[in-house]
Amino acid sequence: VPFKQVENLSHDSLVRRAASLVTDSSSTFLSQATLALTDALTEYAKAVHTLIALQRQYLASLGKLSPAEEDTVWQVIISQRAEVVHRQDEQKRFELTWVTAIRLCEAAAEAAYISGAENASITVRTNIQLAQSQVEEAQKISVDAEKKLAETKVMEVERMTQHAATLEGSNDEEETPEAYLRED
Amino acid sequence: VPFKQVENLSHDSLVRRAASLVTDSSSTFLSQATLALTDALTEYAKAVHTLIALQRQYLASLGKLSPAEEDTVWQVIISQRAEVVHRQDEQKRFELTWVTAIRLCEAAAEAAYISGAENASITVRTNIQLAQSQVEEAQKISVDAEKKLAETKVMEVERMTQHAATLEGSNDEEETPEAYLRED
Repeated sequence: VPFKQVENLSHDSLVRRAASLVTDSSSTFLSQATLALTDALTEYAKAVHTLIALQRQYLASLGKLSPAEEDTVWQVIISQRAEVVHRQDEQKRFELTWVTAIRLCEAAAEAAYISGAENASITVRTNIQLAQSQVEEAQKISVDAEKKLAETKVMEVERMTQHAATLEGSNDEEETPEAYLRED
Repeated sequence: VPFKQVENLSHDSLVRRAASLVTDSSSTFLSQATLALTDALTEYAKAVHTLIALQRQYLASLGKLSPAEEDTVWQVIISQRAEVVHRQDEQKRFELTWVTAIRLCEAAAEAAYISGAENASITVRTNIQLAQSQVEEAQKISVDAEKKLAETKVMEVERMTQHAATLEGSNDEEETPEAYLRED
């Protein structure tokens, strides 16, 4: 039955082509999601580093600024903390998208394999690995920033304690801004 | 920070567009897989019905054909049985593809939803339901054919027994072709 044979081949080839298109679009989706996530991780790390710099600057200037100057500095710190929180939210949001994209690409790779589009399947799997290593790299930068922030917190507590002792020693009435501590 | 805001919007919109493309190609893949499967189910049912007709024809002509004619008839029956097996294999193969396509579309719907492409997500889910009802319909036809084949088998056993009794009664040496029984 040669006619029927051709019919079957046609179904197979249409399914295979459709599977290839899915692997293409899934890979594109993963690329966009990876870019969005790595950018979000980078922006988050940047925001954390800026916060660290501001906090160190504040600690270095403790007791050297007028109450008005101090007020301005910690207003900036508080706004930077909000920026860090915002960047963290964004990072988490894109992380969710990215995990979904990985899952989707795995489904696409399976579909391509089942449909006989082995090359397309291999390409998606390679893209998955690439995306994973890119995200891991960006996550390291973000984790490093968080570690440094934690270190700054330790330093902060030390300096504040030191400063409070100095103030007690000199019987100065100046106080650490409450809002600064409250946000900690 | 208006510039950064635009950057984020851009990431979101790129991810959303990419997700929409995935839902489109996943839906196309599901359509092709559904078409392949429903065709395979239909072809299988047709092959089964042809086999049933051939077997009934053979049973109706029992004792009326010459050994050579009988031989020709059951050669045709055996070849039709091979066709049924072939169609069943094909149906199972496309069933696997189709199940994978459904899983892929579910992943695409989730990806679209997570990315904020709600409409695309709803469209895929509608396509999934459509595909499921189309396949269910085709599966019914295939199951009906299998039921009829089982009924024919019962009828076959009755007729063969009846025929054997007739032969014994007439002391005729004619035998039921072995190959026919062997394939049963």
